[in-house]
Amino acid sequence: MGVVLLPDLGTEIIVPACAVIGIVFSLIQWYIVSQVKLSPDSGISNNNKNGIAESLIEEEEGLSDHSVVAKCAEIQNAISEGATSFLYTEYQYVGIFMVAFAALILLFLGSVEGFSTSSQECTYDKARRCKPALATAIFSTVSFLLGAITSLASGFLGMKIATYANARTTLEARKGVGKAFIVAFRSGAVMGFLLAANGLLVLYITILLFKFYYGDDWEGLFEAITGYGLGGSSMALFGRVGGGIYTKAADVGADLVGKVERNIPEDDPRNPAVIADNVGDNVGDIAGMGSDLFGSYAESSCAALVVASISSFGINHEFTAMLYPLLVSSVGILVCLFTTLFATDFFEIKAVREIEPALKKQLIISTAIMTVGVAVITWVALPPSFTIFDLGSQKEVKNWQLFLCVAVGLWAGLIIGFVTEYYTSNAYSPVQDVADSCRTGAATNVIFGLALGYKSVIIPIFAIAISIFVSSSFAAMYGIAVAALGMLSTIATGLAIDAYGPISDNAGGIAEMAGMSHKIRERTDALDAAGNTTAAIGKGFAIGSAALVSLALFGAFVSRASISTVDVLTPKVFIGLLVGAMLPYWFSAMTMKSVGSAALKMVEEVRRQFNTIPGLMEGTAKPGYANCVKISTDASIKEMIPPGALVMLTPLIVGTLFGVETLSGVLAGSLVSGVQIAISASNTGGAWDNAKKYIEAGNSEHARTLGPKGSDPHKAAVIGDTIGDPLKDTSGPSLNILIKLMAVESLVFAPFFATHGGLLFKIF
Amino acid sequence: MGVVLLPDLGTEIIVPACAVIGIVFSLIQWYIVSQVKLSPDSGISNNNKNGIAESLIEEEEGLSDHSVVAKCAEIQNAISEGATSFLYTEYQYVGIFMVAFAALILLFLGSVEGFSTSSQECTYDKARRCKPALATAIFSTVSFLLGAITSLASGFLGMKIATYANARTTLEARKGVGKAFIVAFRSGAVMGFLLAANGLLVLYITILLFKFYYGDDWEGLFEAITGYGLGGSSMALFGRVGGGIYTKAADVGADLVGKVERNIPEDDPRNPAVIADNVGDNVGDIAGMGSDLFGSYAESSCAALVVASISSFGINHEFTAMLYPLLVSSVGILVCLFTTLFATDFFEIKAVREIEPALKKQLIISTAIMTVGVAVITWVALPPSFTIFDLGSQKEVKNWQLFLCVAVGLWAGLIIGFVTEYYTSNAYSPVQDVADSCRTGAATNVIFGLALGYKSVIIPIFAIAISIFVSSSFAAMYGIAVAALGMLSTIATGLAIDAYGPISDNAGGIAEMAGMSHKIRERTDALDAAGNTTAAIGKGFAIGSAALVSLALFGAFVSRASISTVDVLTPKVFIGLLVGAMLPYWFSAMTMKSVGSAALKMVEEVRRQFNTIPGLMEGTAKPGYANCVKISTDASIKEMIPPGALVMLTPLIVGTLFGVETLSGVLAGSLVSGVQIAISASNTGGAWDNAKKYIEAGNSEHARTLGPKGSDPHKAAVIGDTIGDPLKDTSGPSLNILIKLMAVESLVFAPFFATHGGLLFKIF
Repeated sequence: MGVVLLPDLGTEIIVPACAVIGIVFSLIQWYIVSQVKLSPDSGISNNNKNGIAESLIEEEEGLSDHSVVAKCAEIQNAISEGATSFLYTEYQYVGIFMVAFAALILLFLGSVEGFSTSSQECTYDKARRCKPALATAIFSTVSFLLGAITSLASGFLGMKIATYANARTTLEARKGVGKAFIVAFRSGAVMGFLLAANGLLVLYITILLFKFYYGDDWEGLFEAITGYGLGGSSMALFGRVGGGIYTKAADVGADLVGKVERNIPEDDPRNPAVIADNVGDNVGDIAGMGSDLFGSYAESSCAALVVASISSFGINHEFTAMLYPLLVSSVGILVCLFTTLFATDFFEIKAVREIEPALKKQLIISTAIMTVGVAVITWVALPPSFTIFDLGSQKEVKNWQLFLCVAVGLWAGLIIGFVTEYYTSNAYSPVQDVADSCRTGAATNVIFGLALGYKSVIIPIFAIAISIFVSSSFAAMYGIAVAALGMLSTIATGLAIDAYGPISDNAGGIAEMAGMSHKIRERTDALDAAGNTTAAIGKGFAIGSAALVSLALFGAFVSRASISTVDVLTPKVFIGLLVGAMLPYWFSAMTMKSVGSAALKMVEEVRRQFNTIPGLMEGTAKPGYANCVKISTDASIKEMIPPGALVMLTPLIVGTLFGVETLSGVLAGSLVSGVQIAISASNTGGAWDNAKKYIEAGNSEHARTLGPKGSDPHKAAVIGDTIGDPLKDTSGPSLNILIKLMAVESLVFAPFFATHGGLLFKIF
Repeated sequence: MGVVLLPDLGTEIIVPACAVIGIVFSLIQWYIVSQVKLSPDSGISNNNKNGIAESLIEEEEGLSDHSVVAKCAEIQNAISEGATSFLYTEYQYVGIFMVAFAALILLFLGSVEGFSTSSQECTYDKARRCKPALATAIFSTVSFLLGAITSLASGFLGMKIATYANARTTLEARKGVGKAFIVAFRSGAVMGFLLAANGLLVLYITILLFKFYYGDDWEGLFEAITGYGLGGSSMALFGRVGGGIYTKAADVGADLVGKVERNIPEDDPRNPAVIADNVGDNVGDIAGMGSDLFGSYAESSCAALVVASISSFGINHEFTAMLYPLLVSSVGILVCLFTTLFATDFFEIKAVREIEPALKKQLIISTAIMTVGVAVITWVALPPSFTIFDLGSQKEVKNWQLFLCVAVGLWAGLIIGFVTEYYTSNAYSPVQDVADSCRTGAATNVIFGLALGYKSVIIPIFAIAISIFVSSSFAAMYGIAVAALGMLSTIATGLAIDAYGPISDNAGGIAEMAGMSHKIRERTDALDAAGNTTAAIGKGFAIGSAALVSLALFGAFVSRASISTVDVLTPKVFIGLLVGAMLPYWFSAMTMKSVGSAALKMVEEVRRQFNTIPGLMEGTAKPGYANCVKISTDASIKEMIPPGALVMLTPLIVGTLFGVETLSGVLAGSLVSGVQIAISASNTGGAWDNAKKYIEAGNSEHARTLGPKGSDPHKAAVIGDTIGDPLKDTSGPSLNILIKLMAVESLVFAPFFATHGGLLFKIF
């Protein structure tokens, strides 16, 4: 075995310190963003960071500066208010669910030993006594609530900073594309660091507090901690689905009438659905994404911890080694902090074409430095040799092998990011081919787009498969969990470049609505096109990590449910596999249909307003924005329930009625099938969006032969973009929550299923 | 155990007798169809079947009968020649592949025991001596070639009868919709019975001939027979993919320029791609489908036989019980024969709305009678109790349990058929909703269509899962194989109603091209709309049975490769599962892209002709049909190779490099993922096609608010229809071959993989 270089006291300092550094850094970024003033009286800020007062690079054409700033502030307020009010409404419903589900956890887990308060023999080490099942039930419930609240807070804070930054990005766009980029990127960083640091800190404090009760019973302690992951992901589900339906109902509805029928530009203030559309970006792409990635992070940490607790770390009570997953995340925060400086301080963006490379550099730099960071922390925090629980036996693992597990996850993430970029950026041939197919109309555009999405699955799946093979060969399910953590260790940077997208999108919207010049809109469009790609990259990360996480959770579930094989050849397992592979389709059918129906309602309302409000098209009358906001809100609240119920109830029903083998099949099936649909849906959508932007921007000879806006190929591209909306922003990204959530829920309820599950087979 | 009521001699009479009856019946049907004369001199036939000479119910408006008939005959000739010439070209390429692959089988299987000619100990019964591996290699190669040739013949004969019947259907449409229906349906029946009977007869004779060499070594005999399934399915792959690309490149190309740009009707003779489009229906939907279902039939028989040979039937040399799978198929032919009479003789179709119920009745009647038939044959052909090989041990099974296995497959097929009908027929709300969504444009149409396809997966998957659970609980993998056989036992009826679709489609095309009246076109359109639904039903059957077949083959493979568990928790298996689930996407990406690219070429050619041939639009000049035929031919021949290689090489590469466990994972993964995509793709496509037809027909108040042809909703519907073309006719139906073929190939090569496989893991 051997000694650990880092003393436990060091761990107790490093983890909270890194979390606090992350929070402080995000506050600093927020402060810098806040220096862009939105109050008309103070005018444009003199951003003195470089020591010189800056003036507008271009003057607004014929618009008084005062009125533009006031207009931006007003629009921002409207968006922020809309988003806040929607999230409050959503959280009310979700709150009810949260309480009900907490009661369910308490009831189900408490019933395992008949609510007995006496201690019981430990599951794995039969010689020792562990805390009663009732304690696990209570503490699981508490950690579930903590995870849920942290998840909601992550989403909410992300939305707040995004709506704080969007108008500021617009105003900075007047100074140049570089300035605007930095504001948007810094705001993304605020969200990224806040979320990563918060997630880490809450988890760490929870572990410390639970330890007061559990003492040496680490097995029980970390079982109870798994509730944290469940809480995080279940909130993320509603955030993604509800927010996704909201944003795409508004977006599709706005585009169908505005762009297609009325021939007015995107985000035109005359369009009644325009505020709802911009609100949607913040509640769907920002709040939903924030909750989602927090969930992945929480779950992979929990999966690693629960396996570690029954490995030599837990058995020998090696605190530092036990908290290795948290240490990796801590190092990740420092690495991302340093990486962020490359985008904000070390280099400056001067032209549009530098945006995408700058964002790509963020990924490469963070991955490269993180590799070193992981090597160091692995060396100091782990003994040279230790054992990991592997389906009933202990497997010997060296520390360098665990380093390789984390590193393979980390680099697989980078590969997935690059492949996603290749397939969704309009700088490469795949999207250009899709744009070219618009020549022959919408049908070929859709056929090519679908084919592109299918094709984009190949390399990411091989990357994930290799990560799984390497990490599980070295360190079984623990290896997979830390590989997932490796992929998520640069989450702060990932979220920063991801959140940057919707912020730029909103900035463009505000520019249009405030009636700013064409040049400004061109700049924000360029930021937005890069944002589409980074959003797709972010989704790629989210999906890739979800696949690893859910496999790790699956492994932990299997261990906890005392299953030693999941044999495809047994009918119980195989039908689970088949039905599990079907669930992502069922789920997607619901969410796509929801977006479609809500969009139809939106279209009717927008048409109604255009037809009945005199002077609306001429710009002399104001549209009824509130009606459209209400349609999106009502639809998303109502429609998020059935898919949510499908995901939350499936493991409970299958586990209770059919037992753990069938449930294992369902988990494996939904995982291997869901990950493919999720990747292809999000890349197809991203590609269509950028194919449209490629034609609109007309930056190449080829692109100009397809354009300009309003040409037949452009119209075909708009149709593809609209179809892609629910694919890339509603059903696709929700699927990674589906696969993770079912796995973590199974893990939490494993003791119940193992004791009382499989009723149907018991009866017959 | 107990005695079998049916003596072996009875079996030796029943099987060939039923096959011959099937062939004779199909010849009678063909004779009746041939009574519709196409030679102008004899005019319209006096179909004296009812004893009275019939005359035209409506007179052609201002068209001389003579010229119309001549025109029809001419068009039919062109289509038939095009189809024949394409199939010849395709078969040349496929022939090369066939020979090469036969050599590969000989080489790989021969190498298992180093080409030794001495007998070896049997795999399962170690006490006995079996024929050498080299014999298995040689006989597998022979049966592979027989299967391949039978498959090609099935496709070719189907195409021949379809192109023989299409113009006759058009001419009969002048007498009324009922007359036309019967001609189309009879022609479908010719194909259905010919194929079912041929498949059975060739298989039976092959078994008899092989028995001369193998004698009592039934294990070796039926192992060698598996090559028959491989031959059948590998030809089906090229038929489906090549034919699918051909037909959809032509169809999409023709529609994009003709319907969308030039506003001329579908199948207008001025459209240069119109002949290629009609040829495509015959080589893709008819020849491809025929080969495909023959493959399923051959494979499920082989899977059942190979398992039976190592069960008590084989061990005790009970010939009748051993040939139970063939007896079920024999009874199926008789049942289908009787069922056909309901459509052709017992009832008469008088109105359009009676078509779909009549076809549905075919399904119900055949299933109901077949249930009785299966009960009888099970009772007489099987001993009351016997044992079935189940992963190394023998499982005791009662004959009534085996009856339930076949019955559950049979009825699951009916349920899948009904669900498919519900989701793709424009008589129900799902398609009407999709049509309604065209109000807001093509984007919502596509979103709703995709959601419909996803949703349509749910019930079929449950039906398949229940069949698998029931049948494998009763009789392990043998149960699944006979469940698949049960689903395919009514194949003659299934193929009849399936082939009816493309024949009606062609009939409509010929009516349009021959310049027949609007009324005739309305009738053929109604036939065609029902045909779209039946085609979707046929695809549903093909997919459902493929799922069962490939699972049965998978089971047989696992037995033959001596694997006892396929544990998802081992990394080798899990990465196989993940990559396997990705293969259908990879495959679909290739086929969709192929159709898209070929369609673009077609569009350019069609546009070129419209722009450069003076008088083409006015109808005074003839288009260059041959150029378009050539584009489709070249594209499909060239483009069928990469997806074909993907499917054929994957099992060989995975098995050789990674071994049988990973290969098992790949098979299971591609099965559970592929079946979902296949069902959703074919239903989405069918729904879009019928949503368009719903608007065009305008048979309800609702439909009329969306139409007429040329309205905006109709244009949106046409876009959906075009997107659906490659989904429903190229990538979707090819996927069921992918899953079956990889399984049967693994089964055939199992001894090689078990001996020499897993090179990579052996090296590292």
